[in-house]
Amino acid sequence: MNYQILSRIKSPADVKKLSAAQLEELASEIRRCLVDTVSKNGGHLASNLGVVELTIALHRCFNSPKDRIIFDVGHQSYVHKLLTGRLDRFETLRQGGGLSGFTRPYESEHDVFFSGHSSTALSAAYGIAAANAVKGSKDYTVAVVGDGAFTGGEVYEAMNNAGRKNVRLIVVLNDNEMSISPNVGALAKYLAVIKADPRYFRLKAKTEETINSIPLVGTKISKGIFDVKTRLKNRMYNSTMFEELGFRYIGPIDGHDIQQLSRALEAAKEIKHYPVLVHVNTVKGKGYEYAERFPCAFHGVSEFDAETGDTGVSGKSFSSEFGQVLVSLAAGDRRICAVTAAMASGTGLEEFEKRFPNRFFDVGIAEQHAVTFCSGLAAGGMLPVFAVYSTFLQRGYDQIIHDCALQGLKVVFSVDRAGFVGSDGETHQGLYDAAFLGTIPNITVYSPSTYAEEHEFLRKAIYDDNGTVAVRIPRGSEKDIPEDFRPGFGTFDVYPRGEVGSAPAADMPAAFIVTYGRLFPTACAARQKLTREGLDVGILKLNRIKPIDPGAVDVLMNAEKVFFFEEGQQYGGVGERLLDMLASSGFSGSYINRGVDDCFVPQEAPARQLAMFGLDADGMVSAVLSAYKTSGDKNG
Amino acid sequence: MNYQILSRIKSPADVKKLSAAQLEELASEIRRCLVDTVSKNGGHLASNLGVVELTIALHRCFNSPKDRIIFDVGHQSYVHKLLTGRLDRFETLRQGGGLSGFTRPYESEHDVFFSGHSSTALSAAYGIAAANAVKGSKDYTVAVVGDGAFTGGEVYEAMNNAGRKNVRLIVVLNDNEMSISPNVGALAKYLAVIKADPRYFRLKAKTEETINSIPLVGTKISKGIFDVKTRLKNRMYNSTMFEELGFRYIGPIDGHDIQQLSRALEAAKEIKHYPVLVHVNTVKGKGYEYAERFPCAFHGVSEFDAETGDTGVSGKSFSSEFGQVLVSLAAGDRRICAVTAAMASGTGLEEFEKRFPNRFFDVGIAEQHAVTFCSGLAAGGMLPVFAVYSTFLQRGYDQIIHDCALQGLKVVFSVDRAGFVGSDGETHQGLYDAAFLGTIPNITVYSPSTYAEEHEFLRKAIYDDNGTVAVRIPRGSEKDIPEDFRPGFGTFDVYPRGEVGSAPAADMPAAFIVTYGRLFPTACAARQKLTREGLDVGILKLNRIKPIDPGAVDVLMNAEKVFFFEEGQQYGGVGERLLDMLASSGFSGSYINRGVDDCFVPQEAPARQLAMFGLDADGMVSAVLSAYKTSGDKNG
Repeated sequence: MNYQILSRIKSPADVKKLSAAQLEELASEIRRCLVDTVSKNGGHLASNLGVVELTIALHRCFNSPKDRIIFDVGHQSYVHKLLTGRLDRFETLRQGGGLSGFTRPYESEHDVFFSGHSSTALSAAYGIAAANAVKGSKDYTVAVVGDGAFTGGEVYEAMNNAGRKNVRLIVVLNDNEMSISPNVGALAKYLAVIKADPRYFRLKAKTEETINSIPLVGTKISKGIFDVKTRLKNRMYNSTMFEELGFRYIGPIDGHDIQQLSRALEAAKEIKHYPVLVHVNTVKGKGYEYAERFPCAFHGVSEFDAETGDTGVSGKSFSSEFGQVLVSLAAGDRRICAVTAAMASGTGLEEFEKRFPNRFFDVGIAEQHAVTFCSGLAAGGMLPVFAVYSTFLQRGYDQIIHDCALQGLKVVFSVDRAGFVGSDGETHQGLYDAAFLGTIPNITVYSPSTYAEEHEFLRKAIYDDNGTVAVRIPRGSEKDIPEDFRPGFGTFDVYPRGEVGSAPAADMPAAFIVTYGRLFPTACAARQKLTREGLDVGILKLNRIKPIDPGAVDVLMNAEKVFFFEEGQQYGGVGERLLDMLASSGFSGSYINRGVDDCFVPQEAPARQLAMFGLDADGMVSAVLSAYKTSGDKNG
Repeated sequence: MNYQILSRIKSPADVKKLSAAQLEELASEIRRCLVDTVSKNGGHLASNLGVVELTIALHRCFNSPKDRIIFDVGHQSYVHKLLTGRLDRFETLRQGGGLSGFTRPYESEHDVFFSGHSSTALSAAYGIAAANAVKGSKDYTVAVVGDGAFTGGEVYEAMNNAGRKNVRLIVVLNDNEMSISPNVGALAKYLAVIKADPRYFRLKAKTEETINSIPLVGTKISKGIFDVKTRLKNRMYNSTMFEELGFRYIGPIDGHDIQQLSRALEAAKEIKHYPVLVHVNTVKGKGYEYAERFPCAFHGVSEFDAETGDTGVSGKSFSSEFGQVLVSLAAGDRRICAVTAAMASGTGLEEFEKRFPNRFFDVGIAEQHAVTFCSGLAAGGMLPVFAVYSTFLQRGYDQIIHDCALQGLKVVFSVDRAGFVGSDGETHQGLYDAAFLGTIPNITVYSPSTYAEEHEFLRKAIYDDNGTVAVRIPRGSEKDIPEDFRPGFGTFDVYPRGEVGSAPAADMPAAFIVTYGRLFPTACAARQKLTREGLDVGILKLNRIKPIDPGAVDVLMNAEKVFFFEEGQQYGGVGERLLDMLASSGFSGSYINRGVDDCFVPQEAPARQLAMFGLDADGMVSAVLSAYKTSGDKNG
């Protein structure tokens, strides 16, 4: 691809040299580059197309990395990457060893903060701004936060803390009326009012007039004059909620007009002694027809056809299966409610939303509230199911303890993306839920390996088990399992079943692989290879990982060797718990425990992530063989 | 004590029968009862004195338990307990087996929800109200939420979700301008503006006029008329932030005037198709001179002298020691910042606040923000220390992973109230932090047993260790340790040191007690008793519980028996981790692991809580003896 202007941008300083016409051309080249790369690599397209002009204006008005620009969620940072010297590597976006699809400080000095989870940028930016205030630095800190992220409580906590403090903090509210799906909640409606109310149009006109009177570069208006104008404005018009929380408000600004954006940002810089909120309207998917028309579909995509916008038809997955089963259960039971934190599509709830709108609740990016809200629904006699990604459920840890499990309330969690997630990288791995859910008393956790088990354990969770229950499912689709596997749909399975199930202890294999979830098919493949090596290794597959059935311990008690494989943090994980149970029963065999050993896992294809930790079939085989070799050596 | 009216209140129905004069007398009797009981049992005095009239008005206007009244934090529910048939048992408040100091559904049908952590009531209430809407029930759901709790993001998430929804949800904002300490943040200032601005005074007058026109019981005003008035009001005056978020606003109301409160609540009930927020002004400590003057001191108290208000002088504690050390370090290092989530006093930061106001940050009841804000401070070159109770840090789990540890940022956590907390009960136990911090890669966790270790590990955390570090300390004060214990201030200690430290493996005791934190003195006492029984048991005391030093594993490798005792959740705890490390090194001895085994722990004196789980000296002795007995039997 040929990018005449973009290819000359080696750092933000180069952006500052461009004429107005060149800036427009730059924006156009960036859009081409985004569509081209994301159509090949997948990624977050629509949100980045929406912030092209905004990001150009930011790098025009601020001096990164001296001034620090923090992009909330981080997936809206592609344009920022292109403007900070990363065009050359942009084709490696989201690939193993390549550029991250989020901001990563190890990647560039212009990436201030790791981001991936929503609603953190304002807290981080205020921290940096407060540090600058202590140090007497006059650098600016800018947080770019979407209106979707504003549904998260952490943003409000940060606003409440930062409001009226004398720090050089500028918040850019990137208002595209969307999270991943159209934005929900009272704030979204409120923002629409600001934009639609004639009083605000007048305010806008007035603001623009004020802004227009400020030379872009050059003499500074005095703070006093600006203050008078602001005060006047506040008297004449309704103040905004942001002003009530102690932020100066500038806006709404057309987020696709670089000149207007630049004037607004320069105006914000002039307000030295208060945090400022600049309200910018952008269009998600701007400039790429298909993404403008279907911003949800182009929020986060796999590779697609850039010419036709065809994103392909996605097949069955654990998520879609979840959605279908829940719909069929809900059709027969009016107590079943579905709750999502702005993830209806990703978690498979779109059909549920259509069929049962009054029992469907999209609470916004608000996991803390979502969990307690589910408890309230349960206390009110409903059967709530909260479908949530593993990594985002981390935000509800306290509420699961305090508002669900402690109260013994029947809240069901469908924990999606449990395990390695691939190219989203270290901020999104679902590697903690098995461990952190394990620490919570009175909770039941299932980890199905197949769609059939997913169906059955979801049904059990809703109807058979008391109290709080989680059913964890991986990203993607079911893997092949041996045809002779006969699932028992109980707390655990032993495979091969006929060989071990009811056989006397003495006839059991001397070695067992123990695992759960989507590692079961992998374990079966490993077993097959080991059989070829002449080793008879049984598989114990845990279906219910919390609490572990003591019967599973009984099966393993006489084994010489137990190999535990876990697609999750080993520290605090299921493997450690099982070992503790075995030890307290007097187990005397050897126990080899493999999981993610106390480290973060960067972006990479999931298969390679599994291999990195010896959790693929080859890894399992080599763990078993090496243990036999060692003990053989010992014996010999 | 003689309570003429209060003693006749067996249920809320009895409140409804009282005359205006009797209600005033009831309020007075309740205050006497509160001061009398809390002066003996300790508890939350000031907040309950502030809601006497409000609670009376609530039970007068609503029909609990049909209508559900949820008290946020729950420690403001004493009056509610007295009005719902619990006067007889009120003297057992906060005692083992007695009434909880919070709302507990197992205690009464009038206690709708477990509460203990702040800012959950609105989420729970909206859940119940939404369930009622699905079921077509016309019952009311009321959430009583303090202005302190409004600094928590979960409240805002719930407001955003509930706003403009047609549910019978009434939020009572109990505005006493305090959390535990005077309330902080922009919202607090905003509430002050509502109260002070003449326009709002007029609004208030108008609201009262409207409210006054509504008969307390009897004919209903039509929704239409009310709507017109509300709309008119909104046009005439600035709308409040609550209205912007889709709540009808009534207020501010004098929270000590039962008649005015009743009229406001009846008016709120008439607004059928929107959630309503009733803004009530109360005085924390109202009616008890000492508590009005010193509401912080009387927020949560131990027993005190009811006549003189003397709460006694508290001695040294792990918390006060923390505060002192941090002050002395901060005096010599201008990068050190202290952060608290509305807990400056409880965590020992009062002196720091006085000495270094520009490096002290009370962020409100906002743990998520607090953690990310600390990361921002660290990214800005500061050395932030977040002092937080173990149980409240649960709210920051995701942020510790995503914003601290993953980024390798030097944020130090002083985790206070780690372990059993006594009379605050199951919602406040610090029993999860060792486990949930353990699941996080790149984090270092210390668990000192003495003040001297606390000092040293805090210093190490700030200066020696890379990345994110936690130093966990228990509630209360240092316990006696043997005079011959020579702390090494390293990752672990072996006691008695001379006997084991550098002795050849063969000379080591055959049995070890392994533990950490404040169980070390207990383990020493157990060892002494065991010595008298003729058993030589060494003690391995972990100082750094994450990561565990492999050297500690080496010490234990040849032991026949290892007994691990942990004041925390056993599932996912340190004991399981150590076992995993031992197993992977080929440990062949027996391992007995004792902790809190997958259950919640209700209120009780901490010593008895320890005994319940065999974590007192007697429990340790009997665990060891019984293991020897069993193995003796086996051998014999």
